[in-house]
Amino acid sequence: MKKHNFSAGPCILPQSVLQKASEAILNFNNLDLSLVEISHRSKDFVDVMENARSLSLELLGLQNKGYKALFLQGGASLEFLMVAYNLLEKKAAYLNTGTWANKAIKEAKLFGELIEVASSKDYNFNYIPKNYSIPSDVDYFHCTSNNTIFGTQINHFLKTDVVKVCDMSSDIFSRQMDFSQFDLIYAGAQKNMGPAGTTLVIVKEEILGKVSRTIPSMLDYRVHIGKDSMFNTPAVFPVYVSMLTLEWLKGLGGISAIEKINNQKATLLYSEIDRNPLFKGFVTDKEDRSKMNATFNLTNDSFSETFNNLWKEAGINGLKGHRSVGGYRASMYNALPLESVQVLVDVMKELERKA
Amino acid sequence: MKKHNFSAGPCILPQSVLQKASEAILNFNNLDLSLVEISHRSKDFVDVMENARSLSLELLGLQNKGYKALFLQGGASLEFLMVAYNLLEKKAAYLNTGTWANKAIKEAKLFGELIEVASSKDYNFNYIPKNYSIPSDVDYFHCTSNNTIFGTQINHFLKTDVVKVCDMSSDIFSRQMDFSQFDLIYAGAQKNMGPAGTTLVIVKEEILGKVSRTIPSMLDYRVHIGKDSMFNTPAVFPVYVSMLTLEWLKGLGGISAIEKINNQKATLLYSEIDRNPLFKGFVTDKEDRSKMNATFNLTNDSFSETFNNLWKEAGINGLKGHRSVGGYRASMYNALPLESVQVLVDVMKELERKA
Repeated sequence: MKKHNFSAGPCILPQSVLQKASEAILNFNNLDLSLVEISHRSKDFVDVMENARSLSLELLGLQNKGYKALFLQGGASLEFLMVAYNLLEKKAAYLNTGTWANKAIKEAKLFGELIEVASSKDYNFNYIPKNYSIPSDVDYFHCTSNNTIFGTQINHFLKTDVVKVCDMSSDIFSRQMDFSQFDLIYAGAQKNMGPAGTTLVIVKEEILGKVSRTIPSMLDYRVHIGKDSMFNTPAVFPVYVSMLTLEWLKGLGGISAIEKINNQKATLLYSEIDRNPLFKGFVTDKEDRSKMNATFNLTNDSFSETFNNLWKEAGINGLKGHRSVGGYRASMYNALPLESVQVLVDVMKELERKA
Repeated sequence: MKKHNFSAGPCILPQSVLQKASEAILNFNNLDLSLVEISHRSKDFVDVMENARSLSLELLGLQNKGYKALFLQGGASLEFLMVAYNLLEKKAAYLNTGTWANKAIKEAKLFGELIEVASSKDYNFNYIPKNYSIPSDVDYFHCTSNNTIFGTQINHFLKTDVVKVCDMSSDIFSRQMDFSQFDLIYAGAQKNMGPAGTTLVIVKEEILGKVSRTIPSMLDYRVHIGKDSMFNTPAVFPVYVSMLTLEWLKGLGGISAIEKINNQKATLLYSEIDRNPLFKGFVTDKEDRSKMNATFNLTNDSFSETFNNLWKEAGINGLKGHRSVGGYRASMYNALPLESVQVLVDVMKELERKA
């Protein structure tokens, strides 16, 4: 009996993808060899890498627009550093929406002057700052589209003429927008794309090569582009599973199709949070609520034991909130079925009856 | 019918490990969840990481000697850079035994003065340089224990008082030696340890923190040590499979047990290369021959089509030599059974009869 998996990441993946991945560990492409036992230079794996790269661009609507897709290692944490290494000559502007933005700022500070254009630190990041402007003399502007920990999501991205960089680790491929407004997008795989261990980087080639410092090979996007994302041995299994997940998404009808389901899931859960007197959402401004990670608390902590028992009995996993927020966090990534959200909502209603 | 897999890497892994890994993709630890769907902060995965780290030290005989084991991302290619970032203040000494040493030298040059203590470039790296000395005033000495491409292996490591760093990507856990002579050992997983996507780093803590530069978090060994190798989301699946492979090795009797089998495999193949007039080893000095990667050529290229057909018919995979050497390369990592080498030797004998 499979769990209802609300884990914040690594998180739920489509069951059909897991099935294929499990089989490929024993026999890949009928080669009588495991996926993880073959050369990454073999045609079978090069096809996987190329397929994953082109599916990423296709799903985001970024083919033939000067972008390259890379599957690197090191997660968003290494990108915090690589973005600055590759783009920061003098100064850069960052929007501070919490933990991940903070970490990105910390690493970039080693390479130049940092301007924090706005921050929601004053209220423990429970909203997305709105009234700010992006200086025109910065090398780039950096933002985090979704904050996994606090459950906020940017819904309006400021227009700007400067290079625009976005960490989309926790909501990439979940909602439609004009992705061509960004010059560099990066995302750790372990939410909507695949298992931990690979990072998708989508970069417009024309923004590279403009800093004066020498960049070590492994940190240089141009080196990875020049080698078709195979400068060194890639994380074979995470890239393969990412490719399977992207194929699954394409088969469903792409981002616009999954967005409809994601909206249904979010509406179902947030409606219950707002209706049920025992619960309260963490994010103050409803328009800033993340459709990926819903954060909420009990209005009366004396019900916590009962609630915890109820959701565990219902086969729910991963509902505990992050330590910096407390309460509960329901992560509703692409692969989470609507039925799982219904199970959670039923449990919330049941608590109300019992209370 | 499983292939005889002589692939140079990613390469063969124990079949029992692949079986467990395949099952864990569907249901890990009877959690009714996939290994790749659970939080890396869950007890189930933290146990995997801790087990992998302690098994590494145990198998190398390095427990309680001031070493820490880390499972990072980025392969040896990122270590080329991290070693210099963390250790190179003024100058470092490198032994140049071919491609990988070259790449390590290239990245380290960005951080200080590099002294190439010796090189075998004059004969396309078909031997290991011997008569060299290590300057006493360098920050560290770096060598590559096994060269996967040319098929050479260092059998005598020079004694020195300076910090000693070794890239053991292609022969770690394959042979017994005094590993405590090294202060830092690193190895990409994808030979003797697991699937591509994680890198084992074993480092003596006392050598860290001595350079004056600020090190970005993801490149700082002390940051990873401080977070028990979980500073950021680790490559969950590669770390898990590495743990399984290390458990398998321990179950066999550890490095000394596998070394005996590795010696049998190497003796069987090299004896045939030397006996059979149709073949010639690439490495000139027999004592420099790698027990992991045997490189050899046909003495008469007109037999190549027949030989290629014969080994493919026998179910052999991955025997083609690297483009910079040509000919053939038989990689005999820990998980390759003696029987596979016997099949190859039988094919070589059959070619002789047909010729």
